[in-house]
Amino acid sequence: MNQAYWDRLGGRAKAAAAVLAQARAQKNAALLAMADALLAAQADILAANAQDVQAAAAAGTSQAMLDRLTLTPARIASMADGLRQVAALPDPVGEVIGGSTRPNGLRILQVRVPLGVLGIIYEARPNVTSDAAGLCLKSGNAVLLRSGKEAILSNRACVAALRAGLAVAGLPEDAVQLVDRTDREAVLEMMQQRRWIDVLIPRGGAGLIRSVTENARIPVLETGVGNCHIYVDAGADVQMAAAITVNAKASRPSVCNAAETLLIHAAAAPTALPVIADALLAAGVQLRCCPRAAALLPGRPVLAATQQDWETEFLDYIMAVRVVDDIEQALAHIARYGTGHSECIVTDSQAAADRFTAAVDAAAVYVNASTRFTDGGEFGMGAEIGISTQKLHARGPMGLRELTCGKYIISGNGQVR
Amino acid sequence: MNQAYWDRLGGRAKAAAAVLAQARAQKNAALLAMADALLAAQADILAANAQDVQAAAAAGTSQAMLDRLTLTPARIASMADGLRQVAALPDPVGEVIGGSTRPNGLRILQVRVPLGVLGIIYEARPNVTSDAAGLCLKSGNAVLLRSGKEAILSNRACVAALRAGLAVAGLPEDAVQLVDRTDREAVLEMMQQRRWIDVLIPRGGAGLIRSVTENARIPVLETGVGNCHIYVDAGADVQMAAAITVNAKASRPSVCNAAETLLIHAAAAPTALPVIADALLAAGVQLRCCPRAAALLPGRPVLAATQQDWETEFLDYIMAVRVVDDIEQALAHIARYGTGHSECIVTDSQAAADRFTAAVDAAAVYVNASTRFTDGGEFGMGAEIGISTQKLHARGPMGLRELTCGKYIISGNGQVR
Repeated sequence: MNQAYWDRLGGRAKAAAAVLAQARAQKNAALLAMADALLAAQADILAANAQDVQAAAAAGTSQAMLDRLTLTPARIASMADGLRQVAALPDPVGEVIGGSTRPNGLRILQVRVPLGVLGIIYEARPNVTSDAAGLCLKSGNAVLLRSGKEAILSNRACVAALRAGLAVAGLPEDAVQLVDRTDREAVLEMMQQRRWIDVLIPRGGAGLIRSVTENARIPVLETGVGNCHIYVDAGADVQMAAAITVNAKASRPSVCNAAETLLIHAAAAPTALPVIADALLAAGVQLRCCPRAAALLPGRPVLAATQQDWETEFLDYIMAVRVVDDIEQALAHIARYGTGHSECIVTDSQAAADRFTAAVDAAAVYVNASTRFTDGGEFGMGAEIGISTQKLHARGPMGLRELTCGKYIISGNGQVR
Repeated sequence: MNQAYWDRLGGRAKAAAAVLAQARAQKNAALLAMADALLAAQADILAANAQDVQAAAAAGTSQAMLDRLTLTPARIASMADGLRQVAALPDPVGEVIGGSTRPNGLRILQVRVPLGVLGIIYEARPNVTSDAAGLCLKSGNAVLLRSGKEAILSNRACVAALRAGLAVAGLPEDAVQLVDRTDREAVLEMMQQRRWIDVLIPRGGAGLIRSVTENARIPVLETGVGNCHIYVDAGADVQMAAAITVNAKASRPSVCNAAETLLIHAAAAPTALPVIADALLAAGVQLRCCPRAAALLPGRPVLAATQQDWETEFLDYIMAVRVVDDIEQALAHIARYGTGHSECIVTDSQAAADRFTAAVDAAAVYVNASTRFTDGGEFGMGAEIGISTQKLHARGPMGLRELTCGKYIISGNGQVR
């Protein structure tokens, strides 16, 4: 463990956090200056990114990953726009969450304050660098950013620009620091820095989440894994069911709020399943079916579902399909395989909708709408740092408020107990 | 690891939690029946407790610990009263926390739901068994209780009574389960049960908290360690400062909201410190002073403070005393040694009060009132499961609301994205 490295970064972050906690208008000035600085540094950022992309391509990185890594003038402009949008959001810090005057005259206020220093561990998308820096700054938190090594040169260039913007506005540059170590040990070491990092936010796949769960000694806000289901109830509108299922599966299969399994009531299946399945197949989705579902889809190119298919977040044009006896069997399936992210029922029955929303234990439970709406922007938060699938502190999309905590301020005139 | 043991307990707890999440009036009926059952089982509970106390005394347990372990008819009546009081509190489950209708017509509600299964690890106070069971039940959570081995017979008898009360009200007895293993490995194993336990709440000293931080693979609500300070500003009312300091230190030294260190402004110290120190000495408090403080207290039996004294939660009639140059030095001291629990300024200056409440990073920050008020009852929560010194989810006293989380319920008529 290179503790001296973390003491240096952490000490600077804590000092910056103490300044940010008291800053108000300067934070917005800094966000606008950071946006300007990103645009001004466009040539440097693109040159650094070209080196990253070249190295990643030479290392045999997949095309999908290269796409996420690659920056363009339009993407840099979009990063700058994101910072300006965050500047326009209300400041969560200082909001009075609650309060009372007690019988003894004590006045109790609960006010929203920053968490302190956030640690963000993410992969090779440089736009996360500016998004996360902007949200952390607006919520009054200093941030340590640890990205995938594939994006290290791009992120150095981006962070240099972001820090220049902070300096323009008179805020400490150390409000945004890059963990400039690409070794894997750096991530494990970072997860131990309880003294310096108040909350850790991993943004990545199941492997990263598992590693954080096993190794972190810091409170964590988990994001990301979504094994989401669409349950089509008896009597559901077939066209609505098909539209919602296709949207939830195929509008953007690589994201966590995409659906992975279709459950359909046995009474609805004979008429509805062929319609829904044909719509999915037309959208290029491969279907992995239980025997009852397959029997209802003669002549279609469907595969047999395996046990593992029910457990898998495909993140691809693949959907598992199961016919269930009734809503209770659907609920049991979701309780067993769901990851507590987003679950949907399509139904025309108020009783079924009530049963489903009450019984499903997930961050977001939908009646007659696509799971793809689980998103900070769609929920009206303005922006999001990720989608929490844990129950503590934040559940569902996490915006600026979720990057703060409460502090009780109690005023008296000599009260004792 | 005896995983089969945990799978059995955990499976039962999850099944009970699913029932509790939908229960409403039954929960209050159960709380009243549990109170009756405790009283009805008084003879059994006292007999079991007498065996625990005898064994603990034979093992050389301290008198203070024996006092906490010992039950009497009055204490059992008080446990029953506690359950009745929890029955009278509003049900937090189902409260609508927020909501909106989006431009596309989606109706979003955020409702309060139980966390699921809580794991509580505590020491040898049997009253915690009924307190925790009552709060968990009212908030719709199943609970696994793991107490110190010294109280195991008492807790078996108490839990048998509580479960009988649950059965009377038609709720699953497995809503309250005792971890009936007294080996130390049981605690470590319990901290790994991510599949079965949603949130772990350790209630105990610094050693337990450290062990949980190192070993838990489950989200934790930390409670308990309070290295709290009283800062007496220049110009503070001397009598108010003395009354608050004596109350914060000596009204109940063994609790986490008691103060441990007195910081006093150099301008106030020559006149105020002798008055405050004499009041503390009269209350039986030993003083451990910095050289400047000691020089202002000639003829008093004070000791020299060591570095370790600033770091120590004495939980006893001992107070460290330091003269500081100004409020900034007091803030730096608190930032370095405080545990983020409760901090107090005594001042007549609004500017000083504002600076202190803004800069101190703690769950509860007091102006001119004793730190002893950091308590769920004093804050108007009705009851508390503990006082959180972490920032995520809950900070400060934790009542029923803090044992819940949010769930988004989104209703549409076919919306896709």
